[in-house]
Amino acid sequence: MAITRILIANRGEIALRVHRAAHEMGIETVAVHSTADADAMHVRLADQAVCIGPPAAADSYLNMAAIISAAEITGADAVHPGYGFLSENAKFAEIVEAHGLKWIGPKPEHIRTMGDKIAAKETAGALGLPLVPGSDGAVSEVEEARKIAAEIGYPVIIKAASGGGGRGMKVCEGEDTLETLMKQAGSEAKAAFGDATVYIEKYLGNPRHIEFQVFGDGEGNAIHLGERDCSLQRRHQKVLEEAPSPVIGNAERERMGSICAKAMAEMGYRGAGTIEFLWENGEFYFIEMNTRLQVEHPVTEAITGVDLVREQIRIADGKPLSVRQEELHFTGHAIECRINAENAFTFAPSPGLVTSYHAAGGMHVRVDSGLYAGYRIPPYYDSMIAKLIVYGRTREGCIMRLKRALEEMVVEGVQTSIPLHQELIRQNDVLNGDYSIKWLEEWLAKREV
Amino acid sequence: MAITRILIANRGEIALRVHRAAHEMGIETVAVHSTADADAMHVRLADQAVCIGPPAAADSYLNMAAIISAAEITGADAVHPGYGFLSENAKFAEIVEAHGLKWIGPKPEHIRTMGDKIAAKETAGALGLPLVPGSDGAVSEVEEARKIAAEIGYPVIIKAASGGGGRGMKVCEGEDTLETLMKQAGSEAKAAFGDATVYIEKYLGNPRHIEFQVFGDGEGNAIHLGERDCSLQRRHQKVLEEAPSPVIGNAERERMGSICAKAMAEMGYRGAGTIEFLWENGEFYFIEMNTRLQVEHPVTEAITGVDLVREQIRIADGKPLSVRQEELHFTGHAIECRINAENAFTFAPSPGLVTSYHAAGGMHVRVDSGLYAGYRIPPYYDSMIAKLIVYGRTREGCIMRLKRALEEMVVEGVQTSIPLHQELIRQNDVLNGDYSIKWLEEWLAKREV
Repeated sequence: MAITRILIANRGEIALRVHRAAHEMGIETVAVHSTADADAMHVRLADQAVCIGPPAAADSYLNMAAIISAAEITGADAVHPGYGFLSENAKFAEIVEAHGLKWIGPKPEHIRTMGDKIAAKETAGALGLPLVPGSDGAVSEVEEARKIAAEIGYPVIIKAASGGGGRGMKVCEGEDTLETLMKQAGSEAKAAFGDATVYIEKYLGNPRHIEFQVFGDGEGNAIHLGERDCSLQRRHQKVLEEAPSPVIGNAERERMGSICAKAMAEMGYRGAGTIEFLWENGEFYFIEMNTRLQVEHPVTEAITGVDLVREQIRIADGKPLSVRQEELHFTGHAIECRINAENAFTFAPSPGLVTSYHAAGGMHVRVDSGLYAGYRIPPYYDSMIAKLIVYGRTREGCIMRLKRALEEMVVEGVQTSIPLHQELIRQNDVLNGDYSIKWLEEWLAKREV
Repeated sequence: MAITRILIANRGEIALRVHRAAHEMGIETVAVHSTADADAMHVRLADQAVCIGPPAAADSYLNMAAIISAAEITGADAVHPGYGFLSENAKFAEIVEAHGLKWIGPKPEHIRTMGDKIAAKETAGALGLPLVPGSDGAVSEVEEARKIAAEIGYPVIIKAASGGGGRGMKVCEGEDTLETLMKQAGSEAKAAFGDATVYIEKYLGNPRHIEFQVFGDGEGNAIHLGERDCSLQRRHQKVLEEAPSPVIGNAERERMGSICAKAMAEMGYRGAGTIEFLWENGEFYFIEMNTRLQVEHPVTEAITGVDLVREQIRIADGKPLSVRQEELHFTGHAIECRINAENAFTFAPSPGLVTSYHAAGGMHVRVDSGLYAGYRIPPYYDSMIAKLIVYGRTREGCIMRLKRALEEMVVEGVQTSIPLHQELIRQNDVLNGDYSIKWLEEWLAKREV
């Protein structure tokens, strides 16, 4: 039976995004919402809406029983989880399927595997994705450490096996300091975690974050849709994303994309996924795989013309991939700015009443947002209130268009990160595409001085 | 000297459209406005703004002296006229150039020629554009009329040479009625206009309006950017436009487009232009040429990826065409809905305060509009307040997307034509692309019953 009514188990712009794709396919939508979101745009536009609980996410957007009930009383036949909330919860996926509903997402076992850091790395390695080279587990002897470090090349990083948060972590630039640093790392680890065990990995000093969008039909066919560069991050939160990456050429895209697509085909992966890498000096290193739609998926849509949410729905409905790898072309350049309700430079959240709102418009400008004048941004959720996605034939043209689109965007009543983006795209490093995952925080630190 | 500051001699969405292209090129803008438009979005966004007079267009947007003064006091070095107002005024173009300003438009002599109905037809014919076949001037003898009618084929239309408004106009379906109808037409013409002279043309019973976008560099190079189908009209006002036309195939586009481009090259045409045709049974018949940007230019931008306003500015700045004919590809389908502040079915104007506004968003949806909540639509000008332009890979997908975009669009406080568009795109004839220039009025007449 074909999907006729999708329950969207999410809120904000992504709920609206899914609604749009569904309606364009002639599929009805059911919104669910907390009491805090009764006036939200996704609730207003959906064909039906069900209140599933109080504002706290645990009581509403994470409340599986309430969501399943909402699907049953509204006659929904499929569930789209968006991103965040329950989107990478394998158990929820299983419950959805156990209730005879279609899960618009990957197979639960793949969500589970990729959600476990160790299993994910093992799987990625077995599927031929490049990992960060290092010791295969604990290293106790200096001699062994020396051998491994020589093999993977300096600098290396010594890490506490039981650790985290930087303690018991030492960057070693050359063999002469290896022994000393290993001892220091071991002592610190012992003191901090009661376990002196350390391991060694290649140290990436200034990597970029580059991720590949993949899509599988669950039957062994898979494609890649190129990469996105999401290196501009603050506290591991992406701020501005672009496609293609300024440092990846066609041959490299083709080579790495093929490796990713082949891995997904071998795995029998179903639906949308993103394989995240660190990239340095021309080499990719697997970090993790996200078994869901990403916030930044529109930049890929802009340069490929493929509607990724439509594709997700098609796949969940048992249809084949709508496009073959050889039919996919990457044209032009796209940038997404995440616009948050927060102070642009202190990052203090700024929920409240939007008194005036004007979305940027015109050629090749896309705004994904549920904002409207009179909307009250609730304080309970993620601060992202809009995504501005701009396309251009060239990266330079894209940036010029982004500049004018940001000028045009009006959000009054709350503070937003628009001024941050305006300042960012005037920086030479950003204009030149010359930034790593550390760039933004370093720039912010300097800026504060 | 390169253009650095453009005065935009217009208002509303097209002023905003030009502003956007200019800013994306790093060029400053000067807005001019009547006292009624002081709060308009184009005024708010421009780098400088000059009030040029009271609300009546004759005293402001058509006031050449005031506009030239505004350009001089603001240091503008170019003028973009938009569409309407002074955009096809050859004298204004000359005055602009005489003041050492660049005119972002065609050469004045081409504006003049194409603005004169008779000269335009003569020129078009000489350039090889197909005209409506008919008698070359007056026909007085039935025998001659019979010969001409046989040559061009029935039905033919007999028209009063001095006439208009349908009087002295007779459609003749076959030779047996030709003599009678000629006499009737002559008598009616004599009675109405004091002149019995009539002429004969091929009668187009149910034609479509199909127009080709052209671009020339003024140096003998010209391209075409395919056609637009603007057959859905009411009282000669276009309501909804699409590209490509549902009835034009690739070979036909190529053939007719080449004829148009060749004509423009031969003419030495500069800038953007549109050659309008009636089309029936596979044949094109020249109506007129518009020597300016058209309201519906965004559908062409959507399927070609060429920014036509940017192209206009480049050409005015002495740069070559940015794209060669062989590099142009027509991909997908685009539809534009003109959204007017008027009752959707009585067409009574509805100016006033916009209390709430939400533009449609998401993938492949473009809104060109100066609207915002709190804006007061003045009663003095054209009622068009927004253009919704939607793109899809296929016509069917485009219509599905348009449907959901229209659902999303909110304009409160005034009446709009959104409900008309929503009803239009549910009609089978529109879905099938099966409509002529008469369709909309006939459908409205039936609907009223």
